[in-house]
Amino acid sequence: MDAPIYLDHNATTPVAPQVAEAMWPYLTEHFGNPSSTTPLGHKAKAAVHAAREQVAELIGAHPDEITFTSGGTESNNIAIRGTAVHATHRRAITTAVEHPATIEPLKLLEHAGWTVEPLPVDSDGRVSADDVPAGPIGLATLILAQNETGTIQPVAHVGERVHAAGGLMHADAAQAVGKIAVSAEDLGVDLLSIAGHKLYAPKGVGALYVRGGTAVQPLLVGAGQERGLRPGTENVASIVGLGMAAELANGLLATEPARQTALREDFWRRLAGGIPGLRRVSPLDGCLPNTLMVVLPDQLGADLLDSAPGIAASTGSACHSGIHTPSATLLAMGIEAGLALGALRLTLGRSTVSETIALAAEEIVQAWSRHG
Amino acid sequence: MDAPIYLDHNATTPVAPQVAEAMWPYLTEHFGNPSSTTPLGHKAKAAVHAAREQVAELIGAHPDEITFTSGGTESNNIAIRGTAVHATHRRAITTAVEHPATIEPLKLLEHAGWTVEPLPVDSDGRVSADDVPAGPIGLATLILAQNETGTIQPVAHVGERVHAAGGLMHADAAQAVGKIAVSAEDLGVDLLSIAGHKLYAPKGVGALYVRGGTAVQPLLVGAGQERGLRPGTENVASIVGLGMAAELANGLLATEPARQTALREDFWRRLAGGIPGLRRVSPLDGCLPNTLMVVLPDQLGADLLDSAPGIAASTGSACHSGIHTPSATLLAMGIEAGLALGALRLTLGRSTVSETIALAAEEIVQAWSRHG
Repeated sequence: MDAPIYLDHNATTPVAPQVAEAMWPYLTEHFGNPSSTTPLGHKAKAAVHAAREQVAELIGAHPDEITFTSGGTESNNIAIRGTAVHATHRRAITTAVEHPATIEPLKLLEHAGWTVEPLPVDSDGRVSADDVPAGPIGLATLILAQNETGTIQPVAHVGERVHAAGGLMHADAAQAVGKIAVSAEDLGVDLLSIAGHKLYAPKGVGALYVRGGTAVQPLLVGAGQERGLRPGTENVASIVGLGMAAELANGLLATEPARQTALREDFWRRLAGGIPGLRRVSPLDGCLPNTLMVVLPDQLGADLLDSAPGIAASTGSACHSGIHTPSATLLAMGIEAGLALGALRLTLGRSTVSETIALAAEEIVQAWSRHG
Repeated sequence: MDAPIYLDHNATTPVAPQVAEAMWPYLTEHFGNPSSTTPLGHKAKAAVHAAREQVAELIGAHPDEITFTSGGTESNNIAIRGTAVHATHRRAITTAVEHPATIEPLKLLEHAGWTVEPLPVDSDGRVSADDVPAGPIGLATLILAQNETGTIQPVAHVGERVHAAGGLMHADAAQAVGKIAVSAEDLGVDLLSIAGHKLYAPKGVGALYVRGGTAVQPLLVGAGQERGLRPGTENVASIVGLGMAAELANGLLATEPARQTALREDFWRRLAGGIPGLRRVSPLDGCLPNTLMVVLPDQLGADLLDSAPGIAASTGSACHSGIHTPSATLLAMGIEAGLALGALRLTLGRSTVSETIALAAEEIVQAWSRHG
């Protein structure tokens, strides 16, 4: 059997060939420890520095504002918990559609006496800056692009209110960076999380943008790497990979979002034409170009995927797949629980082409018809 | 110029070719997210499971007792801080010769009201179980093999006292695992830290052994991977690499320690013969087979390495090189500050052979003679 058509790029992306090639020398001959004063150490240190510049360039930051981490979960944990200790107001603003890597750190803040207020979302899964409540704020954390629906949040507008209320603004940009243009400056954020494996870099590496001058307490303590914010011997090969992935993504932003948007809309037309009553969850505008979440009118998403083995996709967030509970994101958007179990998340990537979409749409429609 | 002779294996090891080869498929075609229910996801999940078995086998543990982390620093942080919250006695025992990845977490415990008592070391850099103070203990953390001197601590004996005093026993085995036989069972430890890059696996991956039934609070919170103890999408390729590195190390334990010990002793004889007054810091017995720390009688270690460009070695711990402060480990061993600056850490590896040792010894002796 051929490999399934991969339409699960929001769960994880393949490592770009150029990224794997860039990493290889650092998994072989250039194996130095960046903290060593040997030539191999200098080589590794320079490679980490170059990667820091590449990542900074992608999000319009200064290299000193980039800290490498083990991934999006660690970046979110540092951003949220590492700034909370310095906050003067123990009150956090968030959304009702966050990833567990944000929800769980916020629960720790609640246990420490914080008030956590999730902003409601509309039927597109989007918050409104007008809903930011009055009064002092310590921290706000928003998922810049939602992992299930692709909905892009008005982070800049929310951030203005949050800053006016004395708070810091963090964006969990794990799904956004590389898929759409992301500028830390334009967003006005103080902190921003990046996950390598959503960006055609390997798993186990990420970055945290921290605006210069922002006080953040480290989560790990040790020998002082990453200016003390993230100690531990640097993950050199994967950091080099993340740097290359950032450079590649930067080069593709001029064309790839438009290309994937066109494919996604073709996909939607084909699916909607074949499945009467199919509901589109992902908004047309203000959405990741690669993300199409739909809800089947009368079938479990999991059942459909079981009978469409030629498609690799997801029914919800990859992190909690396998258990048939309706997506909290869809419930927050006002979709009823029974219907939410019909969700299918189809997420495109760089390898997706017209033929892929035509084949995938045909298989999904046929699978639906057999059950229907 | 040829590449320098690499005698800095305690700073970091090259990735074993078999390890890099094992990783490569997971940096290319097998890129699934272990949490995904797609075939690619299943493949990744199975690979992580197999690696867990390989690591468990190396240290005589059950696979369920192995949690993958981003490295030794994170493993130590989880072990120390994650058990401290459950401790009934806020009193920790340690040594005066720990790595910053242990010292800094212990400082956090002190700030939280703990008493931290470092056991003194003898002139070999070794603690004695007899020095474990009376009274209840919450936690003890010992570096199983010291990164600078190679001295192996009597963890099993200390652990008996600690357990009798109600405490948990953690071993920072970053430098030991793979270099000597390490059995969690024989050591009687409750927690044990492993660092991939000291073991011919890549940087950015490690593991923590947690004896079944030991309560540990996670440091990162998120989507629940690694049974909730270490959430975040698994670093699949590097975990596969760590597994292969563990299997390789296990196979080499029958021969490599004896081979490296013989080379090290040849090295010592050649150096001592050429440099009158050279002092051996690393003990002959109860020491890592690959580690030879010496102190020059009348020269800075850094100056000697500057004039011996054919050698890649270290003057102290790689994590704080570049600053000429005497090693705290040597000071704790009773070596005076001025003399301690003459330290050279020469650490052998799998690629070290007789010719390497002869050449390196000659270059070091010549460099010393030019200065002397």
